[in-house]
Amino acid sequence: MPDNVYKTVEITGTSSSGMDDAIANAVSTAAKTLRNLDWYQVVEVRGHIEEQEVIHTQVTLKIGFRLE
Amino acid sequence: MPDNVYKTVEITGTSSSGMDDAIANAVSTAAKTLRNLDWYQVVEVRGHIEEQEVIHTQVTLKIGFRLE
Amino acid sequence: MPDNVYKTVEITGTSSSGMDDAIANAVSTAAKTLRNLDWYQVVEVRGHIEEQEVIHTQVTLKIGFRLE
Amino acid sequence: MPDNVYKTVEITGTSSSGMDDAIANAVSTAAKTLRNLDWYQVVEVRGHIEEQEVIHTQVTLKIGFRLE
Amino acid sequence: MPDNVYKTVEITGTSSSGMDDAIANAVSTAAKTLRNLDWYQVVEVRGHIEEQEVIHTQVTLKIGFRLE
Amino acid sequence: MPDNVYKTVEITGTSSSGMDDAIANAVSTAAKTLRNLDWYQVVEVRGHIEEQEVIHTQVTLKIGFRLE
Amino acid sequence: MPDNVYKTVEITGTSSSGMDDAIANAVSTAAKTLRNLDWYQVVEVRGHIEEQEVIHTQVTLKIGFRLE
Amino acid sequence: MPDNVYKTVEITGTSSSGMDDAIANAVSTAAKTLRNLDWYQVVEVRGHIEEQEVIHTQVTLKIGFRLE
Amino acid sequence: MPDNVYKTVEITGTSSSGMDDAIANAVSTAAKTLRNLDWYQVVEVRGHIEEQEVIHTQVTLKIGFRLE
Amino acid sequence: MPDNVYKTVEITGTSSSGMDDAIANAVSTAAKTLRNLDWYQVVEVRGHIEEQEVIHTQVTLKIGFRLE
Amino acid sequence: MPDNVYKTVEITGTSSSGMDDAIANAVSTAAKTLRNLDWYQVVEVRGHIEEQEVIHTQVTLKIGFRLE
Amino acid sequence: MPDNVYKTVEITGTSSSGMDDAIANAVSTAAKTLRNLDWYQVVEVRGHIEEQEVIHTQVTLKIGFRLE
Repeated sequence: MPDNVYKTVEITGTSSSGMDDAIANAVSTAAKTLRNLDWYQVVEVRGHIEEQEVIHTQVTLKIGFRLE
Repeated sequence: MPDNVYKTVEITGTSSSGMDDAIANAVSTAAKTLRNLDWYQVVEVRGHIEEQEVIHTQVTLKIGFRLE
Repeated sequence: MPDNVYKTVEITGTSSSGMDDAIANAVSTAAKTLRNLDWYQVVEVRGHIEEQEVIHTQVTLKIGFRLE
Repeated sequence: MPDNVYKTVEITGTSSSGMDDAIANAVSTAAKTLRNLDWYQVVEVRGHIEEQEVIHTQVTLKIGFRLE
Repeated sequence: MPDNVYKTVEITGTSSSGMDDAIANAVSTAAKTLRNLDWYQVVEVRGHIEEQEVIHTQVTLKIGFRLE
Repeated sequence: MPDNVYKTVEITGTSSSGMDDAIANAVSTAAKTLRNLDWYQVVEVRGHIEEQEVIHTQVTLKIGFRLE
Repeated sequence: MPDNVYKTVEITGTSSSGMDDAIANAVSTAAKTLRNLDWYQVVEVRGHIEEQEVIHTQVTLKIGFRLE
Repeated sequence: MPDNVYKTVEITGTSSSGMDDAIANAVSTAAKTLRNLDWYQVVEVRGHIEEQEVIHTQVTLKIGFRLE
Repeated sequence: MPDNVYKTVEITGTSSSGMDDAIANAVSTAAKTLRNLDWYQVVEVRGHIEEQEVIHTQVTLKIGFRLE
Repeated sequence: MPDNVYKTVEITGTSSSGMDDAIANAVSTAAKTLRNLDWYQVVEVRGHIEEQEVIHTQVTLKIGFRLE
Repeated sequence: MPDNVYKTVEITGTSSSGMDDAIANAVSTAAKTLRNLDWYQVVEVRGHIEEQEVIHTQVTLKIGFRLE
Repeated sequence: MPDNVYKTVEITGTSSSGMDDAIANAVSTAAKTLRNLDWYQVVEVRGHIEEQEVIHTQVTLKIGFRLE
């Protein structure tokens, strides 16, 4: 196995449909400009509240991808 | 923008339907007695197990609201 | 109440259906070999990405059970 | 089991008789104004020193109680 | 010295004049409704950016006060 | 000195007599099934409250023992 | 509200005029190459000392901006 | 009040009589060579086990004292 | 890919030849009794000093393995 | 470059003029007895409140200096 | 000294020759596309195990470089 | 066993030969002025980069020694 090198970027996805969807949004946005996405790690979950209800969930991910 | 001041309270919501629902329960309970809820942050996710199955999920939130 | 003693094990469940399902998979696997499961705490959420999409979610739990 | 919601408050008890007594003082003071106290977690242990001796121990607790 | 008991609340002050002023705003707002304020500890410093400039600083404090 | 290898397990002891006794209970239970216990480290102190009083203290330890 | 996605970068600003100025320097440098800056969070404060005096303050920020 | 300056040292006290006594031992040893001791904070609790029983408790403190 | 489940154990390897060798010792000892070892993560590096020199390095790993 | 060795001490400076001044006070006091001061890192910001106003700010620094 | 501004990126280097070599691989890969590299900080050490042996070490670094 | 008391100092060793050598340099420098060195714990690994290569590794240790 070659000695791969990876870079990590921190991306926050938001969704009005909960945590799993916010993660998917973050990853699909990252996929538009970065290649070889490999893994993610959740680093923070927050959200905004309006009119006394949760309006959207924000999940911050570290996303790792292989450098070529 | 005026120099707003916020207070944070720590609330644990529980649900037998998973994390997103536990968050919603925590926020809706806080909304009964606190005004101007603005954001939340997840600080812990735990749960209880009975008869070898997950019975409910407990999500502890910091919930921030604007002081008047 | 007797002075119970508990042990904690760290288990990582995976699922292609999101976090709540990954937790359930971790607990049901632990339940095959450990008795008296009592609580869990989420310690890490990660996942793998293939073909630029989330393939599965990995939730690492501390699972506590009562020693007899 | 209903979907209970809990609130956590942070209380610091002090005692000249050591940590266990400081915890008891924190809980008994909280019990005067809050109902349905359920659990505590130690978040910090400090103390003051006077005349080169420990004068009192301060134990800071998160105390959780069920909201009605 | 009696065995004093303290409570801690978490307050976020904001200011367009920097960190020290945000702390002062948080404390003076807390002082309107809480007596016997005794100490604070900074737990987070954040801020908002608009038009590519810092608009205000947000300093989150734990503020401790003696319970009577 | 040979290159010893150690394993750590996480055990929670409970006691109605305070922290030191909870630690002793955790260690004596671990000693029933594990040999060569060597050290412990406190990782968490919690407790349950009933009828507005501390009912028992829970001390979670990492306990290290030498593998043969 | 659309499901916005944000990226976070980590920038260290320095200043011989203290913390608030170091934050402003970090943000104004980031603003030269990144659009839609939205918030920052302080992650570390360090500084260098020369001739036994503080020469400059270094404030490391996470700066978040909206991806288009 | 003058602008006092404090120094913190890290001291580990041991005792075969539990945590409170280990703290007292750490402070009384520090008091032999340092003046103006003012406060302590517990940073770690460990212990050694011999013959399957707790032999002594080690409590590591940060001890603060005023510089003259 | 099936929904694999992993368990993590915490093992401390020691070596008089430095960190890399201590890691190898921890893994090779774990391999004697556990199958399907998959990854490790370093959680602590400590060591003992005798006669004023480093005698051995202790590296504590979390080692993950797939449950069958 | 020779293989320099540094020592770190933990010093708390106080000031009634805010954080930057408290840092300067800590460094100038350390400079009276320690040579070759090189860097500092902020580890905690606290303060005291009297008569419902901030009386002084306490900034705790790790200060590093080169050993000769 | 001008008020320099730095950016930090997070890079994971891998090596079958241990930690020091993994760090060197991370830095030399970063050096291909970034100028003015200045410092690094280790944030995580992990590794993969195959056939019950360590196959490679992964060291994740924050690498800081001066912005021009 | 007497109730020993230990002090911990924080020392940063540097080396152009990697982490293990930096640790040895820190310990041997500490041994020049402190007696009864007993253990160390790694608290941070950093390094400097010049001409796009790692110039030296800095390992910060807590070093514990027995007080007499």
